[in-house]
Amino acid sequence: MSSDEFVVTPWNVEGDIDYEKLIKQFGTQKISPEILSKMKQITGEDHFMLRRGIFFSHRDLNLILDNFEKGEKFFLYTGRGPSGNTHIGHLVPWVFAKWLQEKFDVNIYFQLTDDEKFYTKSDLTLEDTNNFALENALDFIALGFNPEKTKIIINTQNIKKLYPIAAQVAKKINFSNTKAVFGFTNDTNVGMIFYTSLQSAPCFIEDLPVLIPLGVDQDPHFRITRDVAPKINKPKPALIHNIMIPSLTGPGGKMSASDQKSTIYTTDSPEEVKKKINKYGFSGGQVDIEKHRELGGNPDIDHQQKREEAKKSLSKFLLSDE
Amino acid sequence: MSSDEFVVTPWNVEGDIDYEKLIKQFGTQKISPEILSKMKQITGEDHFMLRRGIFFSHRDLNLILDNFEKGEKFFLYTGRGPSGNTHIGHLVPWVFAKWLQEKFDVNIYFQLTDDEKFYTKSDLTLEDTNNFALENALDFIALGFNPEKTKIIINTQNIKKLYPIAAQVAKKINFSNTKAVFGFTNDTNVGMIFYTSLQSAPCFIEDLPVLIPLGVDQDPHFRITRDVAPKINKPKPALIHNIMIPSLTGPGGKMSASDQKSTIYTTDSPEEVKKKINKYGFSGGQVDIEKHRELGGNPDIDHQQKREEAKKSLSKFLLSDE
Repeated sequence: MSSDEFVVTPWNVEGDIDYEKLIKQFGTQKISPEILSKMKQITGEDHFMLRRGIFFSHRDLNLILDNFEKGEKFFLYTGRGPSGNTHIGHLVPWVFAKWLQEKFDVNIYFQLTDDEKFYTKSDLTLEDTNNFALENALDFIALGFNPEKTKIIINTQNIKKLYPIAAQVAKKINFSNTKAVFGFTNDTNVGMIFYTSLQSAPCFIEDLPVLIPLGVDQDPHFRITRDVAPKINKPKPALIHNIMIPSLTGPGGKMSASDQKSTIYTTDSPEEVKKKINKYGFSGGQVDIEKHRELGGNPDIDHQQKREEAKKSLSKFLLSDE
Repeated sequence: MSSDEFVVTPWNVEGDIDYEKLIKQFGTQKISPEILSKMKQITGEDHFMLRRGIFFSHRDLNLILDNFEKGEKFFLYTGRGPSGNTHIGHLVPWVFAKWLQEKFDVNIYFQLTDDEKFYTKSDLTLEDTNNFALENALDFIALGFNPEKTKIIINTQNIKKLYPIAAQVAKKINFSNTKAVFGFTNDTNVGMIFYTSLQSAPCFIEDLPVLIPLGVDQDPHFRITRDVAPKINKPKPALIHNIMIPSLTGPGGKMSASDQKSTIYTTDSPEEVKKKINKYGFSGGQVDIEKHRELGGNPDIDHQQKREEAKKSLSKFLLSDE
């Protein structure tokens, strides 16, 4: 791969991403000054993730905002593939989702895709990914979500609710679609081939339009959902995309849950965080140590305390099948 | 298709089936005189479906019988794709399964694949196939199964139990496998592609080997299951195959739930049954009107009474997710 090439898929992010090019490749919209000012107007705040372009792209966010101004509600949905501990890259859409929830006063669903990570990781059992799901849920809850308006979906636990919705979607997706969007081959396992329907399912869990704050690498799943939605008489999900938080060790790729030294975990001690930034912190170009400190500000003793407290309220957040 | 050609897949049966050729095509074993005499010896009976070759082929039935004689138990599993009313062709493996259950004193699971029929039939909703599932369950119960040892699985209702097992299987099946076994193409929907893992799941629902009495058209699903079983440290399912009950209107194909006049339903009145046999009954060759009367003997007033009574005991038979 030459230095100006990059790959962004739900399972692989490589190279130095040119986000202007990615917007064209994916066919999304850049967040315009008009949208930024409408956001500021509605919320009364200038959120740093919007101001700094951490959220940079969208699909139909303008429709969500226009309809909201006319009194039409929506709900939020985001998630996590539980293949390891939570790192600060994961926190970005969750922190932003919490802000959106507060400002717009809407419900949020958080999906933990333990089945997906089992299908894609040869070394993980379903028990492993289910355990990571429960661990990751604590990091999410620790951010301070309101349990009255927040439900956590764990795919294997909530499959009775998800499967009938996923089946409606799956009937409208063929193997060609998954080849075109994800680059699947004849060797791809049938769990993975079906899986995208389960990531679509929460989009239709309420009878309202949905807005999804998410890492831009997850956009391909919802490109499929957006194609299917009108065929099953549902509204297309709207998306707002954040950039991938880069690895500590260099400008290419993204922070990865499976690469210890390039990544700051919420479970790292303050000493470990300092050590990682001093030792591996990439300080050239735009990604300077100040930015790392700032973005790395979350996994402090405060988050870890809140994470411990989250164990007590976990059951309040878990979606029930009834 | 020339007169000596035929097709047998889980979704399509056409032509005049040569069962000797099918045994070679599918790579199954013919039921030998040795197996027949061992069956007679263990059960103390010469069941007419074995004697007449209605059950004609198997995989590893000899192992099941040998191990049973050594004291090793097994369980039974069969099922139905609920796309319409039950006809006498469906009753064949169920009647035989009931006899096996009594003689070997074992548990049986009966799977109603409402999701499969939704995926394959463009005109059916999931609500339709779920309703047919409950209707078909009554025909099954009406045969007199013991609720203490019999559980009915409805895929969308019992998905929480099935999905984690199906996921283990799905991780070991790729798209190539489904192309080779089912003839799937790039146009096949991803629900169908995944589905075979859900038909495999009940094979592993108890920690014992399973014996599956079934129409030979369903064999391809379990060819996949048998390949996967050792990879997930489970015993290979054993199978005993019945011939397809032919349509009333001719020697080719099988009785089909969607072709009214070629088919005797359990919901037909005795008058309708008589009319169909007199009008459409194919009486040439080996398939004479006597055989039709005999095989058509089930949907009488007696079965319909038992079917009504089954409504009261349905809940006792439904598998619980707990």
